[in-house]
Amino acid sequence: MTDRIFADIAPIRYEGPESENLLSYRWYDADRQVMGKSMKDHLRLAVCYWHSFAWGGHDIFGAGTFVRPWQPGQAVTQELADNKLDNAFDFFERLGVPYFCFHDVDAMATAETPSEHQRHLRAIEEKMARKMEDSGVGLLWGTANLFSHPRYAAGGATSPDPEIFAWAAFQVREMLETTQRLKGENYVLWGGREGYDTLLNTDMKQELDQLGRFLNMVVEHKHKIGFKGLILIEPKPHEPSKHQYDRDTGTVYGFLERYGLTEEVKVNIEANHATLAGNTFEHEIATASALGIFGLIDINRGDPQNGWDTDQFPNSVAELTLALIEVLRAGGFTSGGFNFDSKVRRQSVDAEDLFHDHVGGIDVLARALLNAASIIEDGRLDAFVKDRYAGWESDFGRAALGERTLVELADWALEQDNSASRPPSGRQEHLENLINRFV
Amino acid sequence: MTDRIFADIAPIRYEGPESENLLSYRWYDADRQVMGKSMKDHLRLAVCYWHSFAWGGHDIFGAGTFVRPWQPGQAVTQELADNKLDNAFDFFERLGVPYFCFHDVDAMATAETPSEHQRHLRAIEEKMARKMEDSGVGLLWGTANLFSHPRYAAGGATSPDPEIFAWAAFQVREMLETTQRLKGENYVLWGGREGYDTLLNTDMKQELDQLGRFLNMVVEHKHKIGFKGLILIEPKPHEPSKHQYDRDTGTVYGFLERYGLTEEVKVNIEANHATLAGNTFEHEIATASALGIFGLIDINRGDPQNGWDTDQFPNSVAELTLALIEVLRAGGFTSGGFNFDSKVRRQSVDAEDLFHDHVGGIDVLARALLNAASIIEDGRLDAFVKDRYAGWESDFGRAALGERTLVELADWALEQDNSASRPPSGRQEHLENLINRFV
Amino acid sequence: MTDRIFADIAPIRYEGPESENLLSYRWYDADRQVMGKSMKDHLRLAVCYWHSFAWGGHDIFGAGTFVRPWQPGQAVTQELADNKLDNAFDFFERLGVPYFCFHDVDAMATAETPSEHQRHLRAIEEKMARKMEDSGVGLLWGTANLFSHPRYAAGGATSPDPEIFAWAAFQVREMLETTQRLKGENYVLWGGREGYDTLLNTDMKQELDQLGRFLNMVVEHKHKIGFKGLILIEPKPHEPSKHQYDRDTGTVYGFLERYGLTEEVKVNIEANHATLAGNTFEHEIATASALGIFGLIDINRGDPQNGWDTDQFPNSVAELTLALIEVLRAGGFTSGGFNFDSKVRRQSVDAEDLFHDHVGGIDVLARALLNAASIIEDGRLDAFVKDRYAGWESDFGRAALGERTLVELADWALEQDNSASRPPSGRQEHLENLINRFV
Amino acid sequence: MTDRIFADIAPIRYEGPESENLLSYRWYDADRQVMGKSMKDHLRLAVCYWHSFAWGGHDIFGAGTFVRPWQPGQAVTQELADNKLDNAFDFFERLGVPYFCFHDVDAMATAETPSEHQRHLRAIEEKMARKMEDSGVGLLWGTANLFSHPRYAAGGATSPDPEIFAWAAFQVREMLETTQRLKGENYVLWGGREGYDTLLNTDMKQELDQLGRFLNMVVEHKHKIGFKGLILIEPKPHEPSKHQYDRDTGTVYGFLERYGLTEEVKVNIEANHATLAGNTFEHEIATASALGIFGLIDINRGDPQNGWDTDQFPNSVAELTLALIEVLRAGGFTSGGFNFDSKVRRQSVDAEDLFHDHVGGIDVLARALLNAASIIEDGRLDAFVKDRYAGWESDFGRAALGERTLVELADWALEQDNSASRPPSGRQEHLENLINRFV
Repeated sequence: MTDRIFADIAPIRYEGPESENLLSYRWYDADRQVMGKSMKDHLRLAVCYWHSFAWGGHDIFGAGTFVRPWQPGQAVTQELADNKLDNAFDFFERLGVPYFCFHDVDAMATAETPSEHQRHLRAIEEKMARKMEDSGVGLLWGTANLFSHPRYAAGGATSPDPEIFAWAAFQVREMLETTQRLKGENYVLWGGREGYDTLLNTDMKQELDQLGRFLNMVVEHKHKIGFKGLILIEPKPHEPSKHQYDRDTGTVYGFLERYGLTEEVKVNIEANHATLAGNTFEHEIATASALGIFGLIDINRGDPQNGWDTDQFPNSVAELTLALIEVLRAGGFTSGGFNFDSKVRRQSVDAEDLFHDHVGGIDVLARALLNAASIIEDGRLDAFVKDRYAGWESDFGRAALGERTLVELADWALEQDNSASRPPSGRQEHLENLINRFV
Repeated sequence: MTDRIFADIAPIRYEGPESENLLSYRWYDADRQVMGKSMKDHLRLAVCYWHSFAWGGHDIFGAGTFVRPWQPGQAVTQELADNKLDNAFDFFERLGVPYFCFHDVDAMATAETPSEHQRHLRAIEEKMARKMEDSGVGLLWGTANLFSHPRYAAGGATSPDPEIFAWAAFQVREMLETTQRLKGENYVLWGGREGYDTLLNTDMKQELDQLGRFLNMVVEHKHKIGFKGLILIEPKPHEPSKHQYDRDTGTVYGFLERYGLTEEVKVNIEANHATLAGNTFEHEIATASALGIFGLIDINRGDPQNGWDTDQFPNSVAELTLALIEVLRAGGFTSGGFNFDSKVRRQSVDAEDLFHDHVGGIDVLARALLNAASIIEDGRLDAFVKDRYAGWESDFGRAALGERTLVELADWALEQDNSASRPPSGRQEHLENLINRFV
Repeated sequence: MTDRIFADIAPIRYEGPESENLLSYRWYDADRQVMGKSMKDHLRLAVCYWHSFAWGGHDIFGAGTFVRPWQPGQAVTQELADNKLDNAFDFFERLGVPYFCFHDVDAMATAETPSEHQRHLRAIEEKMARKMEDSGVGLLWGTANLFSHPRYAAGGATSPDPEIFAWAAFQVREMLETTQRLKGENYVLWGGREGYDTLLNTDMKQELDQLGRFLNMVVEHKHKIGFKGLILIEPKPHEPSKHQYDRDTGTVYGFLERYGLTEEVKVNIEANHATLAGNTFEHEIATASALGIFGLIDINRGDPQNGWDTDQFPNSVAELTLALIEVLRAGGFTSGGFNFDSKVRRQSVDAEDLFHDHVGGIDVLARALLNAASIIEDGRLDAFVKDRYAGWESDFGRAALGERTLVELADWALEQDNSASRPPSGRQEHLENLINRFV
Repeated sequence: MTDRIFADIAPIRYEGPESENLLSYRWYDADRQVMGKSMKDHLRLAVCYWHSFAWGGHDIFGAGTFVRPWQPGQAVTQELADNKLDNAFDFFERLGVPYFCFHDVDAMATAETPSEHQRHLRAIEEKMARKMEDSGVGLLWGTANLFSHPRYAAGGATSPDPEIFAWAAFQVREMLETTQRLKGENYVLWGGREGYDTLLNTDMKQELDQLGRFLNMVVEHKHKIGFKGLILIEPKPHEPSKHQYDRDTGTVYGFLERYGLTEEVKVNIEANHATLAGNTFEHEIATASALGIFGLIDINRGDPQNGWDTDQFPNSVAELTLALIEVLRAGGFTSGGFNFDSKVRRQSVDAEDLFHDHVGGIDVLARALLNAASIIEDGRLDAFVKDRYAGWESDFGRAALGERTLVELADWALEQDNSASRPPSGRQEHLENLINRFV
């Protein structure tokens, strides 16, 4: 096998909607201006290292299916880590995305002790820095994996054992500083085992306090070292844990409020995590925006018939149009972006399939962006909403939401003494049809 | 048909586990002492008016099946309301529960205007007060129905129309004061339509602000009139709305923090709402307790195969034992209690079925209480948990959760330079077997 | 209120994709030829009477919201039934669909006894026949409502009471003959309560035998009276029942095999029922086609976050494209068609909203049909599948699926003695991208 | 580490309900007679090899956590396979169960080619035979793993490649004959990848025909070699596949009918698969019994909040009581039994935890058996059901289900001309309370 598996694949170019080349962009035209900003700057696309380079195609019922020179899914030597890095950057460059993301252990040689961990992480960091400089590909965010090693079986920050808490602190310190040195733009924590398998052996209040303290320490360290990016939590309701404390955006907001972190920590919303939690993807974005904690997006899709995190690439332009409307309404990303937390199916064994995955996903996002921008520029949707709540702009409405007491409002209703206007049509079907005009 | 349908049914008595009388209590012995308090004072049982007296057995695919003299499910005259009241108290007394709960419209004659609403509510309040005095049955909580009338189709407090917001304020003012005059011990708000059917026509931030202001007005009024009970929100994720803002305890906590209400407002946790939201019932209680907002319980069960609120009576002693452990750990109820928000199945058409429903549910709660008390008195479960987190009581643990910085902890791990202890067995199966010894 | 609520709404016309008129068809051009057949003949569109004319906007938590002259949701006099009929045909004609569908009780005046039922059904049948003749609108299928009246609380054909079984037979006989006289093209049975609320009071084998016998009786009567249309079962997993015997197409197929009915009875597949059962809509069509029992479609959509039958109008062109591919592969409809078993949301209170609902849904179907036809004409998708299974066309493949024994195949593998080829890439992402080119 | 990890654990004995020894049976008393048969013969308990000996505690987000001398989760040498076998039989004997179950690859050394596979399987078979003879532990069923190796990524019997179909035939032939030589009592097929990941690349009819032919070959071979046990399919709706053809008992029944196999093939019902498919466990048993295809049970439980196969040990006596009622009603097992297809949680890392898992599960089954027998002997439940359907025993009822035509029944209803009796109370709550008396 060749050492560089993408060598024969030509860089992906924008060729326009009529192109018959399935390995071209039909919609993603990086420099095209949309609402005053380039597509590239709107979407801030990133490839994730874990699904495409550290996963070997295994699932819970079967072994890995991907034959790669860097042997994904096995213990990693420095040599394999180097090969993986070369291939990863070959991929990023051919795909033409501005960013990637990684966990410490995705990229580095396997380590068992802290000193080895530090050594291996710095070894790959150094090579990665050169690759980044050569390629121009940046780091959208870094993260530490606090869930794969058996030491984290009962959680990292929420471990019953303070020594493991310290190990987690070590790993995050190292990776936060690596992220900073690599000019990474954000730092994310996903707490896959920050939850419980059974309440019977769990002290929930203790664990929440641990998680609150841990996050505060991370924020303090960020300021100490002058890291300018966002710190983010990625909500997920469960899997592998039975229950994860960061179950969705509303819950994370309460947690951040409790531990004084709403100004410091934002959410990295994943589409598939949103639906596993019983919310729509766009709901999570709208909620984060309403609560002032919108940060990043992990883009993928789940399977509505399967109750686990399938992490498929997004393929519904219609659904993403709704999500992009919320992103644009939220003012777009500051340091955030769209990270493809999606993986090819286990049967998609060819190097080429990694391109189909990402090219398809990027084009879907690009179309959704164009649609969302058209809808916002069209203005009818926003006008409908504004008009629906217009009563709150009246003197009565402003007072009702302002200084009026329950008694004053109740007495007003009693004085009017009518049966109250019924709400006018909510026009849901009309609005859905309006959206469909642009999709 | 007789006007008093429970006339022939003898009061339900405690007869002990060996009784063959299915209309007796085998476990609920009101005055039995459990951990220093009577069963009655632990459970503080209530019957809800709506399912047993205001619902006629209709479902979304079919008409009512219950033949009752007060014609449930139809517009209510004063005469029918009076008959319903008589029958309801016949039921409460025969069942021997200390409390009931009701929405304004459950009990009163139908009204269309505020003045009529006030008149009809006060008319039934007056008769109810006499019934309560005669029977000794108290009001656990009152609530206003802000979801059944078409005026609330787009929400009450979250209506796009401030006039409907005022109507909601009127209804809550009236019912809060009625609750106070009836010596009700708490006041609950369930926001069935405080959410949205589609994000497309919704301004979420505006609606959250409305809901926050509304709740603050209610709290202000409570203090003004000197109402001493709790104000509570009842979380539910959806139904009839597509999405309800108060989706679960974690989300409600964030909402209360945002609007400065965590000291003033608690949660009324419903078992079936918990499972619809993707949580266990005991999780919701444990969460509310950890966050300091535990108040009340609406007890029932859902159907794990059906995705709507089936509101069946609880029948799993094992599941409720887990819930009662959390209630006891939380210190039990102050002014809260267990309200049977459960209804007989549509085919259970006889008056007698209402007794089977409640007698079974009460006995299940009583057994669960006895089991939970035994488990806590046994001490092994709590001891296991305490031991599991014992490291946090060490100097290192206290410092780690206290003043230590990320750097200090990371450096400590690096100095130790071992691969970190793996967590000892979580012993889930052992603990589950331990619980089963008591169930 | 005017008696004819659609009087001011102009007939819906095809105006092409660029039309800004939201009450026009942008894609549905009835006579446009697609793969050798008109759109009208491909889709065979029908409006259902129940959601648009017999439902008043109530849900399980609230009263009806629609103000209509025929007072939907209340007991129906002949006069109201006549007004409803007039309005329904006004709607069908303005919408320009070739068909409608109805349950007996949707259209007729309320009846309590068989003779009254027969009289009222025939009264409306007579008027309906004239309306149909005048308008040219045909009946796609008829059906009897065996679930709304309290007599059917425990099922119709599966009732524990043979007298109710006889009532069900009466109602079906009447409606099957009415359907025939109205030149209805098919007859459907949906068994909303043909299942159970609890296994504890249920004899499943007895009930299955009843259902099998009932269906055989219907088939015998169909032949006796010379009805030429299909007889169909509409699968649904539950709601209002806890469990319905006809849960999905695979299960219905087994039932039909058991009672000797696979040649006589087909399935009417509903999109929202498919997803409630844990299947995709296209899976159900493909299954029915593979098993030879594909008949009809009830088109709508569910809400992935809500666990009940929301019956929303379809609005995803991408999802319906997949469904239409399966319909075209199955050879299209014979006497079947697409019935809009969808309803406006409860807040969509205006007469106009009924048009937005249907116009949007029809255009989505039309676009999906165009897309599916393009994909099939393009040929790449089908060619990929054909190639993937090409091994089965070889001598070895044909023998393997034909006369070869387990021993012969096992010995062949042993003789080859290699580790067997791994499957080539399944190319899922590539194929999904290919589909997205056409959507 | 010692080579024999269970050496220090004493055999599990029956010590009665009052025993404080958590590693004793409190309810499972093998020779106790229940309804004329010993508990041992009722339950026919088996331990599965895969979860307890071939799985190393990995999940999709993390590495194995179990430290065992046979290195589960890694490639297996003959030496490791031998150690695993020794330990497995140490476990079976200490636990005191009469049976075990295994897949070929669970027990044998890893093989890549057919000849190696045959050699390794026979090597372990030979040693296993001696172990079985020495211990008296029998094989409840054998099975071939057609899903873990990458060659089966697209299915075994349903592979698009006939060579893989032949490989599957080889593996099944070998394992069926091994099962026969080991005096195994049944042979099971679970088709984890006999389904699809996407319909887009799938020819469903072709795959169903392959699966039908494959199963027929297995049945032919069974008869040829004189294997007397049952052949069984284990239904599951999905995971790892998006959709599995054998989704539940109703669907499998249809499949068996289609390919002429209802007399030859039965179902192995798994509790967790039942609930993943949207059915209750007891529903699946009752369905299999009603359709005449009940065979075996894989006992475990799922997590109602988690959408994947958690395979936890059963711990609800109440739920299993309902299942055991159905098993007893079905006449109990012939060659079937209860196989513990359950695994300890990933944090339950000690050898001792394997005992807690199984001892708890066995006692729960034993209690459920005692409860179910008491309920059946009590007779009230069955009497209620019999009485509920009594009308079908009348002349009218027998004729209605027999020779009566639709016309005769309809005319009878018309002659009676009343509104039909409404069904009497279904008494669901009463029956649930009755069950709770015995739980």
